[in-house]
Amino acid sequence: MKIGFLIIGSEVLDGKISDLNTKLLADFLRNHHLQINEALTVRDDSQVIKEGLEKLFRHNEVVVTSGGLGPTKDDLTKETIGDFFQRKLVLNEEAIKISEKNYQQFDRQFPGKSHGYAYLPEGFIPLSNSTGFAPGFTYKEKDKILLSFPGVPREFKSMLQDHFLELCSEKIDSNVLLKHFIVRTKNIPEEKIFGEVDPNLWRKLESFGDVSSLPILMGVDIGVKLKALSQRELMEKEQKLKDIFSQSPISPAIWHIGTESLEEKIIQVANKKKRTFGFAESATGGLCSHRITSVSGSSQSFLGSIICYDENVKINQLGVNRETINTFNVVSPETAIEMAQGLQKQLNLDIAISITGYAGPSGGTTEYPVGSACIGLALKDGTIRAQTLRLKGDREILKQRFSQAALYTLLEELEKFAES
Amino acid sequence: MKIGFLIIGSEVLDGKISDLNTKLLADFLRNHHLQINEALTVRDDSQVIKEGLEKLFRHNEVVVTSGGLGPTKDDLTKETIGDFFQRKLVLNEEAIKISEKNYQQFDRQFPGKSHGYAYLPEGFIPLSNSTGFAPGFTYKEKDKILLSFPGVPREFKSMLQDHFLELCSEKIDSNVLLKHFIVRTKNIPEEKIFGEVDPNLWRKLESFGDVSSLPILMGVDIGVKLKALSQRELMEKEQKLKDIFSQSPISPAIWHIGTESLEEKIIQVANKKKRTFGFAESATGGLCSHRITSVSGSSQSFLGSIICYDENVKINQLGVNRETINTFNVVSPETAIEMAQGLQKQLNLDIAISITGYAGPSGGTTEYPVGSACIGLALKDGTIRAQTLRLKGDREILKQRFSQAALYTLLEELEKFAES
Repeated sequence: MKIGFLIIGSEVLDGKISDLNTKLLADFLRNHHLQINEALTVRDDSQVIKEGLEKLFRHNEVVVTSGGLGPTKDDLTKETIGDFFQRKLVLNEEAIKISEKNYQQFDRQFPGKSHGYAYLPEGFIPLSNSTGFAPGFTYKEKDKILLSFPGVPREFKSMLQDHFLELCSEKIDSNVLLKHFIVRTKNIPEEKIFGEVDPNLWRKLESFGDVSSLPILMGVDIGVKLKALSQRELMEKEQKLKDIFSQSPISPAIWHIGTESLEEKIIQVANKKKRTFGFAESATGGLCSHRITSVSGSSQSFLGSIICYDENVKINQLGVNRETINTFNVVSPETAIEMAQGLQKQLNLDIAISITGYAGPSGGTTEYPVGSACIGLALKDGTIRAQTLRLKGDREILKQRFSQAALYTLLEELEKFAES
Repeated sequence: MKIGFLIIGSEVLDGKISDLNTKLLADFLRNHHLQINEALTVRDDSQVIKEGLEKLFRHNEVVVTSGGLGPTKDDLTKETIGDFFQRKLVLNEEAIKISEKNYQQFDRQFPGKSHGYAYLPEGFIPLSNSTGFAPGFTYKEKDKILLSFPGVPREFKSMLQDHFLELCSEKIDSNVLLKHFIVRTKNIPEEKIFGEVDPNLWRKLESFGDVSSLPILMGVDIGVKLKALSQRELMEKEQKLKDIFSQSPISPAIWHIGTESLEEKIIQVANKKKRTFGFAESATGGLCSHRITSVSGSSQSFLGSIICYDENVKINQLGVNRETINTFNVVSPETAIEMAQGLQKQLNLDIAISITGYAGPSGGTTEYPVGSACIGLALKDGTIRAQTLRLKGDREILKQRFSQAALYTLLEELEKFAES
């Protein structure tokens, strides 16, 4: 089943928002062994929307649209798609019922026939929206299926979950098992992995399926798309791939096999090993803690953090010596270690990680220019350590990269603990 | 000048990453009174890439591509675009020089002719990359301009800044001034704004240019696209729009006129009024602090935060009474107030904001189910206050919405202070 995605929204092309729905759709489809074939983002303009539908239906049996279903005049999707299929807007009793239900969720009353939501192109079927006001809709013609959902990611996601499988059931081939086999590596540039480190790796992997290489934050994800006709065949292929990677010189750089994020992996390991941790965050300003607490179940091992942006917070809340800062600099291994030690003691943690650095654009010293950071570590058993990083990027990228380095350090340390 | 954007990367369509480059390109273009006409995301497949180029060049004079320029075999962009223009790959001396320079930045040596970066389709011009290894390239044919940049957002952004204007200078019409006039509102659903609250607003705005309405996190951005031939005309139009909004019943819901984010606005106001603040974050787990510290200059007014995920951190670090938690619940106005008071005192802040809530998926009580949060406030003068929210969404959305509510509260409070 080929699926095209039409993102309707000038706001995406104007940079007012980033499109999050492609990822939501892709994630949903992957769980059902499906994928997006192509995605097109267009402005709120009838002619352009119609050309987009035309293009996508040329190559795809199913077209999902997001956006333009709201109550305001720039929301053209419904009329335009009706027009595309040469269907006129008519009063739709089912749409009224669904709108009433959508409104009730927010303790509001649907105005009824006077409201645009009561109308749909002839033959279109309205779809309930469990997280918003606007109904979605679907339409089938010959072997083509159209699905239109709102653009707000929360609503897009819930409608996808509520309706997609049922509406496309006839098209889903459940015989072929697809799996993205993902190996996540750190600290070796893509350039080197397939160059001097393991020049034959790509060729070896290719015999199992399409290979991809994706540089992410301070690491590279290597992917192989596996196809199999049975769970057993799939598992055998996975095992063979694991063997290839474990024998490759890049093996020490692999921190995970699977699609889990770094923060998810950390919580898995920490919860399994019953170890507690927290951060003393200066340069990352809360990003490490935010990433960790985005994982459900994080409260079991993440106890808390101190965000010590101001020097006095480092001194008063973490017990860093003012002399250490004055002698060695606020960004220095010495300060980082005292921050981690202070946090470890204050919160009685198994692992305390600290980050002090210059994210720019201003600040920095000759020895520690913008892009420098020190990651400190203090364990309950008294172990202390610090490393210094010198990275590139703007403020946002540096925050991301500093946090990535801090989380890599945390994971390495967690892996060393025995299971309890 | 019409600009099409071709995003080349199966990784986006597979949900492995979200496309950030559309927003980077849109933001860059907006600053130069330009915009993206349409964007197409395609898989790493020569045939599909060529069809995408064909489609985009049909409607656009300039096509920017991102992705597929790396050193691995799934990076097909260069060969494919060469093929599209019927140009063969040839050794390019300039590409070698540029690659050498790119490699030097990372203290590495470019292997020379043996490396793919040394080759470009005939007649293509290589472009230096100040943040990565892979050179970009450009090609002009008749009145069509192609620009190809790497997909890594950091590299995409720097190449855009380094090369775009120079390469497209002949096509930029600098006579017409364009401006997105943006009014940012909070806490009234889009449904209501243009319905019962101000039914004539849309029509009034429309006479100034294209109107758009964009629901964002707990608010709606209303936009009007202004065109003018002089700064004076632009300013007059802006003033008239401001008058319309100040007379509208939605006026109290407006928190900003302009494109600044909530966190940028907070730092502007706090720095101007010389007020300090910080957060006691439980449910948001560092997100408030992360958002604030993403703004350059935040260190002037943001001193620090305590992320108190664990109950003992609330008690030991913030001085919340265990009895308060036991009597009223950990998510309650009473606990939220003690958290804010504790933080205010600890860090000697002008404004302390606390957030305690249930982001789910598990947890919650009958009185405070998942989606409930209490925002507490404590000022240096002893003022205390708390509000309770009941919102919907999954864990990530709830964290975002709780943080938005906390930042709205902070901004309201900052606005009350006189300038110092």
